[in-house]
Amino acid sequence: MTEWHLDPRLADDTHPLAQMALCDWRLMDDSHYPWLVLVPRVAGATELVDLSESQQQELLREVSRASHLLRASFAPDKLNVAALGNVVPQLHVHVVARNTGDIAWPGPVWGHAPASRYGPEALVERISMLLQGLADA
Amino acid sequence: MTEWHLDPRLADDTHPLAQMALCDWRLMDDSHYPWLVLVPRVAGATELVDLSESQQQELLREVSRASHLLRASFAPDKLNVAALGNVVPQLHVHVVARNTGDIAWPGPVWGHAPASRYGPEALVERISMLLQGLADA
Repeated sequence: MTEWHLDPRLADDTHPLAQMALCDWRLMDDSHYPWLVLVPRVAGATELVDLSESQQQELLREVSRASHLLRASFAPDKLNVAALGNVVPQLHVHVVARNTGDIAWPGPVWGHAPASRYGPEALVERISMLLQGLADA
Repeated sequence: MTEWHLDPRLADDTHPLAQMALCDWRLMDDSHYPWLVLVPRVAGATELVDLSESQQQELLREVSRASHLLRASFAPDKLNVAALGNVVPQLHVHVVARNTGDIAWPGPVWGHAPASRYGPEALVERISMLLQGLADA
């Protein structure tokens, strides 16, 4: 059994937010959009169907919880939920709050604009807000 | 209770493939990629979290089944699974077979190249192959 390690590219592009039952929840380091990345701690998984049925159901619960969190925190016009993995094959699910005025709208966020990384204060503020939202839910 | 109707833009961009317990399964009319679109027949739903818990679980089962179908039929390098809805808000889930040589790789398929619509014979062949794959599974 290989041990699970976060892919270094995901580690570089995101900040840790929380550890849930199945996934590490991380904040994409791109202030263009409130953008969470959920990474199941399952070694070798690259597709949803690589997870067991119970792991898939837990992932669904966490995606649902992340969706509610972004809705409650940012009142977005739309949520985008996606498991792509063309660049980083390690299974991860994007949950992104989209607004009709955001820089990529209505296109997808992937490969659109270079990331606008958070400054230290904005990052702390955003992480705190999300953790508070999780605690309140 | 409003009745569910397929969004006319989805109807125009896709062909009917099968009716499952929750979703209409449709084939995206773009021969660049084997691309299924699963549309839950739930009036007014635009987000995953608009579905009840049991509907979400059925959607997960159908996404898993569609993933296995594309894997078995096309042996793709990667699957892309996404619920976006920025252009057509009616809830629908894309399940796309990706290959490292496809026209958009490694970028997302949405908003990349104009669709290459199937000719009548290629369409019939593709639909028949998928239905056979469903029957064999």
